[in-house]
Amino acid sequence: MSQKIVVVGAVAAGPKSACRARRLLPEAEITLLDQDDLISYGGCGIPYFVSGDVADEKELRSTSFHMVRDSRFFHEAKGLNVLTLTRAVSIDRKEKLVHVENVKTGEKSKLPYDQLVLATGSRPNVIPIPGHDLNGVFTISSLHKAIAIKDLLAQGKVGKAVVIGGGAIGIEMAESLADLWGVETTIVEFMPQILPRIVDPTIASMVQQHLKENNVEVFTSEAAQKFEPDNDGWVRRVITNKRELECDLVVMAAGVRPRSELARDAGLEISPMGGIVVNQRMQTSDPSIYAAGDCVETFNLVTGKKAYAPMGSVANRQGRVVADNLAGIPSRFDGVVGSFIMKVFEICVGATGLSTEVARAEGYKAVNAMVVQSDRAHFFPTQALMFNNLIVDSSDKRVLGLQGFAKMGDGLLARINAAAGMIANRARIADFSNLELAYAPPFSTAVDVLNAAANTADNLVEGRLKIVSTEDFVDWMDGKTEHPDWIAVDLRHPKEAEPWAEAYPDKWMALVYDQVRANYQSLPGDKTLILICNAGTRSYEIQVFLRSKGLENTLVLPGGLNVIRRLGVSWWR
Amino acid sequence: MSQKIVVVGAVAAGPKSACRARRLLPEAEITLLDQDDLISYGGCGIPYFVSGDVADEKELRSTSFHMVRDSRFFHEAKGLNVLTLTRAVSIDRKEKLVHVENVKTGEKSKLPYDQLVLATGSRPNVIPIPGHDLNGVFTISSLHKAIAIKDLLAQGKVGKAVVIGGGAIGIEMAESLADLWGVETTIVEFMPQILPRIVDPTIASMVQQHLKENNVEVFTSEAAQKFEPDNDGWVRRVITNKRELECDLVVMAAGVRPRSELARDAGLEISPMGGIVVNQRMQTSDPSIYAAGDCVETFNLVTGKKAYAPMGSVANRQGRVVADNLAGIPSRFDGVVGSFIMKVFEICVGATGLSTEVARAEGYKAVNAMVVQSDRAHFFPTQALMFNNLIVDSSDKRVLGLQGFAKMGDGLLARINAAAGMIANRARIADFSNLELAYAPPFSTAVDVLNAAANTADNLVEGRLKIVSTEDFVDWMDGKTEHPDWIAVDLRHPKEAEPWAEAYPDKWMALVYDQVRANYQSLPGDKTLILICNAGTRSYEIQVFLRSKGLENTLVLPGGLNVIRRLGVSWWR
Repeated sequence: MSQKIVVVGAVAAGPKSACRARRLLPEAEITLLDQDDLISYGGCGIPYFVSGDVADEKELRSTSFHMVRDSRFFHEAKGLNVLTLTRAVSIDRKEKLVHVENVKTGEKSKLPYDQLVLATGSRPNVIPIPGHDLNGVFTISSLHKAIAIKDLLAQGKVGKAVVIGGGAIGIEMAESLADLWGVETTIVEFMPQILPRIVDPTIASMVQQHLKENNVEVFTSEAAQKFEPDNDGWVRRVITNKRELECDLVVMAAGVRPRSELARDAGLEISPMGGIVVNQRMQTSDPSIYAAGDCVETFNLVTGKKAYAPMGSVANRQGRVVADNLAGIPSRFDGVVGSFIMKVFEICVGATGLSTEVARAEGYKAVNAMVVQSDRAHFFPTQALMFNNLIVDSSDKRVLGLQGFAKMGDGLLARINAAAGMIANRARIADFSNLELAYAPPFSTAVDVLNAAANTADNLVEGRLKIVSTEDFVDWMDGKTEHPDWIAVDLRHPKEAEPWAEAYPDKWMALVYDQVRANYQSLPGDKTLILICNAGTRSYEIQVFLRSKGLENTLVLPGGLNVIRRLGVSWWR
Repeated sequence: MSQKIVVVGAVAAGPKSACRARRLLPEAEITLLDQDDLISYGGCGIPYFVSGDVADEKELRSTSFHMVRDSRFFHEAKGLNVLTLTRAVSIDRKEKLVHVENVKTGEKSKLPYDQLVLATGSRPNVIPIPGHDLNGVFTISSLHKAIAIKDLLAQGKVGKAVVIGGGAIGIEMAESLADLWGVETTIVEFMPQILPRIVDPTIASMVQQHLKENNVEVFTSEAAQKFEPDNDGWVRRVITNKRELECDLVVMAAGVRPRSELARDAGLEISPMGGIVVNQRMQTSDPSIYAAGDCVETFNLVTGKKAYAPMGSVANRQGRVVADNLAGIPSRFDGVVGSFIMKVFEICVGATGLSTEVARAEGYKAVNAMVVQSDRAHFFPTQALMFNNLIVDSSDKRVLGLQGFAKMGDGLLARINAAAGMIANRARIADFSNLELAYAPPFSTAVDVLNAAANTADNLVEGRLKIVSTEDFVDWMDGKTEHPDWIAVDLRHPKEAEPWAEAYPDKWMALVYDQVRANYQSLPGDKTLILICNAGTRSYEIQVFLRSKGLENTLVLPGGLNVIRRLGVSWWR
């Protein structure tokens, strides 16, 4: 008798585990089922389909060699039994049967299994406020919804849209609506910043400003309270705790949660956050049942704690581990570090590991070093600034996370990817200082921005570098918070610095970097000197020098005016 | 008495160690000296200066904030004593003195030191053949030489050039001559491939073909034997063992060797290959004397053996470690993995760790997995193919190296950088399979090309994947070597495959991938079936299937026709 494997769910982890199981177990009888008719699609591609970058939804479910991944494909090319429009209703673990139902005909049947794989995915969170079920309020939960939104856009029915949620999917959807279609788009985010828990506030503010420059309005610390319809029952207004926003479309992008009812009803262990509990071999509490993808709980490799990581890439890796174990190969999936990257119009933002806020909440003595530097040799024509923010534990110098902001391209990816493996390996600052990133002038600098971030973090932890946070400095300049007597010492070229000194005579003075050693005595030693340059490196050097001359009361503005410039402050000159 | 530090050499490691030592030791008296007048330049930028991408040599020795790094800069901004045009003649270790001489005036003096740093760099290898000292024969050993070459180009004096050496610098120089200046350029490489010891032959051939497409001729396995002048003593011909090449310029790019005479004469330990021997704190055999950069020997972190790594990036990292140790901070530089990347016209090529050839020479049971895949979601408009070649030890599944070939951009850098840290940490295939590279459709694929390379390497090591090398297959097609009865089974779409089957009826047949399960009985079971598709993935799947049907005599062409296409074979259709 050949081994019978049933795989429930056919988007990412399901097809991956089924197809590799087919290769590893040529004799097995493998059945892949899904309640939908559209299967094996790149869900992460939905914003690019809506935007028009991807013309046809079929491209999202085609192979790289242009075959559509439909039932026929999985049957003929991959050698699987495929049941679409088929819902798994319940699992009889004793008899090892899955009870299924055709969602169109209602026809019921039973699928016997020796091993079962649950890849039931996630469902989007719906904010339970009045009007959440109106026409025109969408979640991004399936390709069908994406097709419906794109149809509305193509028919010219969407002039204004509100996106609820400033996470990655919310921002991607906002861009897809605003960029090609010219929809007046607003993001409403409940937390004080966009991309909460993913990046630190400074980078979030830079992204928010870039969205604004591209006509996407963002309101943070703001909650949608009600969706209101017109007479036809179509959503036309979002009421928040602060304002009313007109709209023709609402996209709710408030995160997802595991779709684990089937597992729960079968008595499998489910985590408090709703994920199916699996071991490192991706086995559930029933050793004959595996689970993978958005429906499972996993581990965070930085904190060692339970985590939820609903990502197509994670699902694929887990699916492979499932297949291996089905075939008796003891592969493991140990957890995630949370690598992340996204395009936002002309820039990109990425992260891996923990943000400063999350790290502190987890009990780490976290500090962050923001470094701004050319992404490649500063003399190379295509160079652009890259912002790297390294989060480290000041008690043991372990690197906890990296975040970045850069011109759109793969340069930031090169640093995030390098950091991801290092952080998973519990690397320390010195490992990052010596990390051998590939160097040639068209690609990088001799001291790569990531090496530089580590060097800066070391100076910070060792107390050689003392900084003021960008947020605090902006508040002082805005007069939002008071601070004892301070003055900005602008170390840039006089042509850059002097107009600022003239505009803000009480707060700003110019003293060019290479003249400080000769003229430091002109500095007002009774004030807190905020040392300012374009990137922070000259400021650090001057801080060290002034300390040697007894001027201890200095603070460096990390990343310098290159950061401030991207925040949209009113006092930018 | 303040600590006296003397630093000999002011290009990369020297200024780095001097400047950081200044920051860590505000009281120290630090002297930086160099025999040249041009100091602290980005030597790796020379090809981009010659090409015209960088207009002015000053850009190669400017800070990112546009200050020229000359004596004045290091003195006024950095607080160092600077002596240019000053040669260190000898070291009196007993008296702790450096004897120096002004190279213009001949004036001699003595510099006392408490700690000495040697950053004397490297010198280019000169092939000792007749005519090596002719006018018009250049090495790329200093900014002066680069300026002289560019002057010749600007004056229209160079119509044809020969570059001796097909390593990175030779190729970069060839591009810089051919691209903007339109010089008819030929590379002569002694070894059977360009980039020897850096990348495997297949990738070298792809680069060579790309050079050819950009009008740079390459002759491998060929030795320059003589340079011949015209009546004015200017070089006009290169005589090799195979031909005569006319030229107006010869660039000798045959590698560099440590400049360690000063250290040797002082009795410091020197390695057999001529590098100054240092420990992990960058101390020479005399604990008061440190050394860093191109003049030292270091360790290879993969093999654990001695290595030579003359790279600006390595020099900077080592310089920082020197400064730390001068200041009593016990930082270490443990060695290199050999990360490498370069631009070649419209493509880039990179590597980290060992090539297959080097790994085998070092005694590893090395095999390599070549994977070709979209660098980002195949439905994303800017996608392009990326070639990743992972070298692994088949005995313990350790990853020994990664090489890649891709469209010019930072995508390949993102994989090389990620692999570099992992390889230094002695990662295995499974670590690469699960490596959490950041994923979003504009940047990568759910199963990244690097994850895929690891998965393929695992299939190879486990014997699930059986391959023919690209070189062997090309030789069979070319009729260069005989092989028992074989036939290529082309699994691509019939529109792609059938013209080939018609053109090569004895060697080629078409059977589309998704019909193999139904029609495999039509395959000639008595022959070796070479399974062919565009990338190798369909071929692998079919190999596994055919094996389950008793057809064991199959071989996959790794990377498929996407590799073959880039080799410039005569039989491409």
